[in-house]
Amino acid sequence: MSARQTPVKALFFDVFGTLVDWRSSVAREAEKIFGALGHKVDWTAFADAWRGEYQPGMEEVRSGRQPFAKLDVLHRRNLERILPQFHLQGLSDETLRDLNLAWHRLNAWPDVPAGLSRLSQKFWLAPVSNGNISLMVDLARRNNFPWDAILGAEVARDFKPKPGVYLAACAAFDCKPEQCMMVAAHSNDLAAAAKLGLRTGHTARPDEYGPGTGEGAPTVPVDFAAKDLSDLADKLGA
Amino acid sequence: MSARQTPVKALFFDVFGTLVDWRSSVAREAEKIFGALGHKVDWTAFADAWRGEYQPGMEEVRSGRQPFAKLDVLHRRNLERILPQFHLQGLSDETLRDLNLAWHRLNAWPDVPAGLSRLSQKFWLAPVSNGNISLMVDLARRNNFPWDAILGAEVARDFKPKPGVYLAACAAFDCKPEQCMMVAAHSNDLAAAAKLGLRTGHTARPDEYGPGTGEGAPTVPVDFAAKDLSDLADKLGA
Repeated sequence: MSARQTPVKALFFDVFGTLVDWRSSVAREAEKIFGALGHKVDWTAFADAWRGEYQPGMEEVRSGRQPFAKLDVLHRRNLERILPQFHLQGLSDETLRDLNLAWHRLNAWPDVPAGLSRLSQKFWLAPVSNGNISLMVDLARRNNFPWDAILGAEVARDFKPKPGVYLAACAAFDCKPEQCMMVAAHSNDLAAAAKLGLRTGHTARPDEYGPGTGEGAPTVPVDFAAKDLSDLADKLGA
Repeated sequence: MSARQTPVKALFFDVFGTLVDWRSSVAREAEKIFGALGHKVDWTAFADAWRGEYQPGMEEVRSGRQPFAKLDVLHRRNLERILPQFHLQGLSDETLRDLNLAWHRLNAWPDVPAGLSRLSQKFWLAPVSNGNISLMVDLARRNNFPWDAILGAEVARDFKPKPGVYLAACAAFDCKPEQCMMVAAHSNDLAAAAKLGLRTGHTARPDEYGPGTGEGAPTVPVDFAAKDLSDLADKLGA
């Protein structure tokens, strides 16, 4: 049986941007927490600045310059880095801790809960995200994500797109790469998975960084390109 | 706040014997697979013999004499060790593989699905079992276990009652040990968890190895001793 004919058993999901709208959720949480303290800034710009530190923070770990740390830890470091830009200083540790947990309170894109529920009937589902386990649990409880297990960076102790993260997820499910499909709204994530033999499913999130700024279509070859998870479920016969 | 007053956030569950009736399930699966091939043995004795190799197999890993391997791998080794005792030889690899997966097809004790569902409303739930992730997923799908994550031996890469297995589970959930409760029908599992500061809940499984052979009550001090998971949910106010 060729790899193309091997049935897919498991779907692995990118989470930030693909399943949840981090931008409007972080802006909302920041406004709530800082607003109560009398601060007023452009909360969407604040969310973008915080997210802007995301890849550089992980790159320290991927490159081996820093040991692995949970994304919660990196988020906190990144937060402290951007606060001065927004003149948000002298905050209590409690406020910073609460704000850091904004990433645990992100809302799903509207199609996601029903789409995952359909896909769950046919496939094993797991997040393969750079987020840590407790963050994934909070998002799952908030948004009814029906995960079979939480895989990803914390289990592999490295960050995507390092190959070990995808391969650790396949191994945890006793699957060969071709029995697994990575689903993401980011072509670089899918390209890294495809290189290892995983199948790939792209889901459009054209508004991830604001209207018209996300990927409306993949920029790399993929097995499936879907409008959203409902469309992906249609295409996968789920 | 003393440890006794810290609210419990997460419940960790032993699985074999505590949540699922491995003995009658393995006997049933062995009878189905071997029976179709014309073999006839005492299938309950077969299940007991297979389970009898469980602790010695894990002890090789705990002691450092063997590297960590998933329980599926140990189960297969243990199976090949006991087959000659039952004059079950010359079986195909496919048959042995199917039989080994009997451990993925165990049935829950009757109180478990409803009990976990109640407990899930109030606590984060995870198996902290010596079984591997894929085995836990198969049992969860078969029996509707509402896990938030799959923790335990495969994540910690060692077997209970080694301390690292319990502590890795607490760390994955960002919890201090006193925020976690280990639930098991086996006093040695609870004693190991208590030593690390976890709370403990015993659930009676008096028939685990046949009528009257299991633990009807804990033999060590525990925080809660319950008749079953429904009783535990009552006691924890879930």
